[in-house]
Amino acid sequence: MSKKKVSATAASQTIAITVSPDITDGARRAVIDAVLPSVDHGRFPVKCVVGEKLRVTAHCFTDGHDVLRANLCWRAEGEAEFREVPMTPLVNDVWEAFITPPSLGRYGYTVAAWVDPFESWRHELTRRVDPEDVRIALQVGALEIAEAAKRADGTDRKALARWAKQLDALARDPDAQVATLKALALDEEQTTLARRYPDRRHEVRFATELPLDAERERARFSTWYELFPRSTSPTPGVHGTFRDVERRLPAIAAMGFDVLYFPPIHPVGRVQRKGPNNALTHGPDDVGSPWAIGAEEGGHKSILPALGTPEDFRHLRDEAAKHGIELALDIAFQCAPDHPYVKAHPEWFRWRPDGTVQYAENPPKKYQDIYPFNFESEDWRGLWSELRSVIEHWIGEGVRIFRVDNPHTKAFPFWEWCIGEIRRQHPEVIFLAEAFTRPKVMHRLAKGGFSQSYTYFTWRNTKAELVEYFTELSTAPGIDYFRPNVWPNTPDILHEQLQGGEISVYQTRLVLAATLAANYGIYGPAYELREHKPREPGSEEYRDSEKYQLRHWNHDDPESLAPFIARVNRIRRENPALQWDRTLRFLPIENDQLLAYAKASEDGRNVIVTVVNLDPHNVQSGWVNLAPKSLGLETHEAFEMHDLLSGQRFMWQGDWHYVQLDPHRVPAHIFAVRRRDAGSRDFDYFL
Amino acid sequence: MSKKKVSATAASQTIAITVSPDITDGARRAVIDAVLPSVDHGRFPVKCVVGEKLRVTAHCFTDGHDVLRANLCWRAEGEAEFREVPMTPLVNDVWEAFITPPSLGRYGYTVAAWVDPFESWRHELTRRVDPEDVRIALQVGALEIAEAAKRADGTDRKALARWAKQLDALARDPDAQVATLKALALDEEQTTLARRYPDRRHEVRFATELPLDAERERARFSTWYELFPRSTSPTPGVHGTFRDVERRLPAIAAMGFDVLYFPPIHPVGRVQRKGPNNALTHGPDDVGSPWAIGAEEGGHKSILPALGTPEDFRHLRDEAAKHGIELALDIAFQCAPDHPYVKAHPEWFRWRPDGTVQYAENPPKKYQDIYPFNFESEDWRGLWSELRSVIEHWIGEGVRIFRVDNPHTKAFPFWEWCIGEIRRQHPEVIFLAEAFTRPKVMHRLAKGGFSQSYTYFTWRNTKAELVEYFTELSTAPGIDYFRPNVWPNTPDILHEQLQGGEISVYQTRLVLAATLAANYGIYGPAYELREHKPREPGSEEYRDSEKYQLRHWNHDDPESLAPFIARVNRIRRENPALQWDRTLRFLPIENDQLLAYAKASEDGRNVIVTVVNLDPHNVQSGWVNLAPKSLGLETHEAFEMHDLLSGQRFMWQGDWHYVQLDPHRVPAHIFAVRRRDAGSRDFDYFL
Repeated sequence: MSKKKVSATAASQTIAITVSPDITDGARRAVIDAVLPSVDHGRFPVKCVVGEKLRVTAHCFTDGHDVLRANLCWRAEGEAEFREVPMTPLVNDVWEAFITPPSLGRYGYTVAAWVDPFESWRHELTRRVDPEDVRIALQVGALEIAEAAKRADGTDRKALARWAKQLDALARDPDAQVATLKALALDEEQTTLARRYPDRRHEVRFATELPLDAERERARFSTWYELFPRSTSPTPGVHGTFRDVERRLPAIAAMGFDVLYFPPIHPVGRVQRKGPNNALTHGPDDVGSPWAIGAEEGGHKSILPALGTPEDFRHLRDEAAKHGIELALDIAFQCAPDHPYVKAHPEWFRWRPDGTVQYAENPPKKYQDIYPFNFESEDWRGLWSELRSVIEHWIGEGVRIFRVDNPHTKAFPFWEWCIGEIRRQHPEVIFLAEAFTRPKVMHRLAKGGFSQSYTYFTWRNTKAELVEYFTELSTAPGIDYFRPNVWPNTPDILHEQLQGGEISVYQTRLVLAATLAANYGIYGPAYELREHKPREPGSEEYRDSEKYQLRHWNHDDPESLAPFIARVNRIRRENPALQWDRTLRFLPIENDQLLAYAKASEDGRNVIVTVVNLDPHNVQSGWVNLAPKSLGLETHEAFEMHDLLSGQRFMWQGDWHYVQLDPHRVPAHIFAVRRRDAGSRDFDYFL
Repeated sequence: MSKKKVSATAASQTIAITVSPDITDGARRAVIDAVLPSVDHGRFPVKCVVGEKLRVTAHCFTDGHDVLRANLCWRAEGEAEFREVPMTPLVNDVWEAFITPPSLGRYGYTVAAWVDPFESWRHELTRRVDPEDVRIALQVGALEIAEAAKRADGTDRKALARWAKQLDALARDPDAQVATLKALALDEEQTTLARRYPDRRHEVRFATELPLDAERERARFSTWYELFPRSTSPTPGVHGTFRDVERRLPAIAAMGFDVLYFPPIHPVGRVQRKGPNNALTHGPDDVGSPWAIGAEEGGHKSILPALGTPEDFRHLRDEAAKHGIELALDIAFQCAPDHPYVKAHPEWFRWRPDGTVQYAENPPKKYQDIYPFNFESEDWRGLWSELRSVIEHWIGEGVRIFRVDNPHTKAFPFWEWCIGEIRRQHPEVIFLAEAFTRPKVMHRLAKGGFSQSYTYFTWRNTKAELVEYFTELSTAPGIDYFRPNVWPNTPDILHEQLQGGEISVYQTRLVLAATLAANYGIYGPAYELREHKPREPGSEEYRDSEKYQLRHWNHDDPESLAPFIARVNRIRRENPALQWDRTLRFLPIENDQLLAYAKASEDGRNVIVTVVNLDPHNVQSGWVNLAPKSLGLETHEAFEMHDLLSGQRFMWQGDWHYVQLDPHRVPAHIFAVRRRDAGSRDFDYFL
């Protein structure tokens, strides 16, 4: 096959289409296949979190019945040498080992395997019974061990040489019994020593070094609260400020949120500014959409004066930190027609013959107040580096979490490059992709580097939909790179289910989000105050949406869900099981209105079982299957189910258990599973 | 990440672990993912057959809502340029196209995609209604089309330039109506012309060129008959010859076999020669095991004198060809202790301190009469090329099919290299891997180049086992590289099920093999004459096995299955549906003793439904599900089921159909499904 390049990386592949692989050492008999996890065969990094155990498996075997040894080899970016971890054979030629990344950043891993002469000899010897065979075997072993001695130093070298001599001598002793011969040859202590000096001359390495990104824990476990700073003034009709937001911090912290996310805080364009409810015209006092970024006061690196000064922003950032809350900003790479970029860099936009720019769209949404960037600009390099500098600016202001607006309407190569560049300097930065689009597009963004991704959760409402979708989200291949961040509502999505305003529905959707996914968030105060009027029937838009006008919220509403949310979020914080997506397992339950699932912590000690009533109006009951065996108990053993929502405790025994949920009280159980002997004392979870 | 190589191909992968991909053109916005089929991301070739349609799919998309175009690019080995086939978008960003390899050999394929400005403009225009928008759109289009004109020549160039001018002029005509404007802009004829000159400046190519091997049809569809030439003499106790085999050809051809496979035909070693029933001692007249290859008369390139001369072999080969039968030889790379190689190349064997060589084993089998080669020999290069020359020798003698004995006890890199080398010169050569071992080992051999592979069929007997195993064998990823060749018996395997000798069992297992797999074979005459005595109870070895002694067969046995086998094989020849593995689909049938499945030809016109009674003793009946809709018929339409075994015809209507099978008559139906209107006339299959 012609070696003519197909692309930068294609050249390497010609090895696959040339007829014979080029062999440097034909005596390399080990075979390594299917090293997992692997995202597109190493084209993209696998994701994990610092300190977390990443399980790596591979198929390793060789011809005949010789014995293999295999090591998992891994290194941090920039390290020349690999660290090696011995792999353990499981069934059917599958081997496993674990990596625990010690710090943030990029890692690479691969697998090395070799046919081990010493192990093969030992395995062979155990099968031998004929005295003559055994004597010969001992002589063969003596030679192997003498070789191992040469690879060792000091006392090890002496010890191995001595063992080799003893074996050879004993093999030639006519009086020695088979038992004696084998005893010396299979001696555990000497064997352990010999294993330290394997013969790896014919070692094989898996051809691909697979990339791995270790992020901080908040990439895997976070609880988001979105609000519009301009709607935080205690005085109706007055534009809110960062100082007003500071006053909200205690309440937000009390609800248990650890990420506070703001829509864009930049100057809002005046040209084509939108009026209330997405009107195409606006009045003098209309504030417009914060996503129509840029005006004469500045663009993506500036702050809307009405919100405050950069100093005010830093003060807010520090106050939030005191409450254990991190600020997240909105990265919306687009411009109002009067954004300074439009004059300064006309080459970044696509101009039409009539001297206009076609406004942005994300069908069916039309953004008449926004110009999109032209990612096919001749000056794409200039555009890319300016956009990167926007993120760097806010990193300079102490922001480490960014929610990216419609990333799927910007070029994919840009994101892969930009996130890579940022993470090389700041591996602690977290990016959330707000892409509500087609599955493969969303997955590609996650592969390209986004730490978290919005999902279809809002539109998954029935038991069947939830089981199917969250099974997909919690299993390979997605689980290796796509981290769901699920939202019951957003400023763009008031789902039909919420438009009835029933408390039970708001509670149900919150519990589902908070217990099905380790990352979730709500758009408040709209959520806890159950704002539920659509702009018009059949619309998912909020009426009088904050996207286009100031709103004033009554935080003293006695029906506020704040206390309920606080309780659920505390349960998340106190139970590691809810801080993982990988361990989700749905439980059989004989009622289509009841959904039940279990989650366990990485070490398996913390087990949470959630049961939710999806029917907002009626009491539902049914039998849920939770087998003691699946909890490491004897079939007959009883165990305690402690409902962390209601505080009630139940004793369960056997495989099937009766549950009943009344939506008018609490539509869910969030059970901590406890050993009986632990009684009501401290947690004592299952191993 | 350090660029230090992990291995020859790892270097390419450092692009994955360096932080930012190196970007040459940031304006390349198309994304291509998941090009399938692909065996280990192109490390190994996908398998197909010349003239067969290979379906290739890929995920192609871009940011925003611009329109893509994608081409499947493929070329034969050695060609510098790719042929391009436009791909068609299906649902969810999956695109498809087909490759039909015109000739034998290695091919490569990949995918190219680009954001197409013309298509994007056209798509955009269809959505526009505002007259001003449409006028602007026309001017934009005029510019695009003017560019297309520059890429065209001659009349096309003129035509496109004219169209561009017309659009621009009309756009500026104040009297032109929207309908008129859009009519000219969306004109089909002009559009077709413009599409021939797309703007591919920002084209993206999938980084991997995937390899594909096109073999001849017999690699996919073959019917094998194995016999021991030395047992073909009409006179009991006399050593058979190639001439005797020639006398058997008409009968073998009459049974419908197209591959005649012989165990090794080389001189048999005398040292450690085995006696009858695997005895460790032999008498003066014992012939030994033909797999103990080599004696003073010669080795792997010689013929056992008792069988005949090279001339006799060629004569047999030509006679077989006249009957449409191809000879297949056994490649067993191992030596009797007195094989000439042992003296000439002691460096190819592993000598023990006592000057002996450990005999070969394939646990639990012991081959005391065989020395294995040492694939870790310092002279592996010399060993490899000598072994390749053995295959080349027999290719020189006109052999094109090789059944390889225990390939899994020889080094994997050797096979990949050797088969690759052979196929480069002789792409028509077919290799069958006789590896009864662990799944991943068998699959790796198939990936490494073997055209066909032995399977676990012999040990899959219950309905559940057969459904599970053949579903695996007929679906991805295995179906892309692993071609099963299934055998109800071999000289090594007389399955317990056969040891009862019941005709119905022999019929059932034959029908299953012949209709479940496109490649199958039997070891005869043991099979058609129902040889069924085990060496001892619980053993899968034949008593008085031909492996160690001459046998004489009574071909005139009135109970011979020869006529039944002939009928089944004729049905295979006449029905393309049975010549494919990919289209297998099991049908629901409410009886655990009844197995039902459908197969269709590549074009879907030939449909065969097989129903088998797995109970050798009792009549079994049940209802099988075959929905008219699945056959492209209306729900109410009746269709004819023509049992090609019994000749009976049935009319079926609706989804569920009653079947009853008596093992004492015929334990299976092999139905051709026919349109009613075809009546009993010529075949007229379903589309």
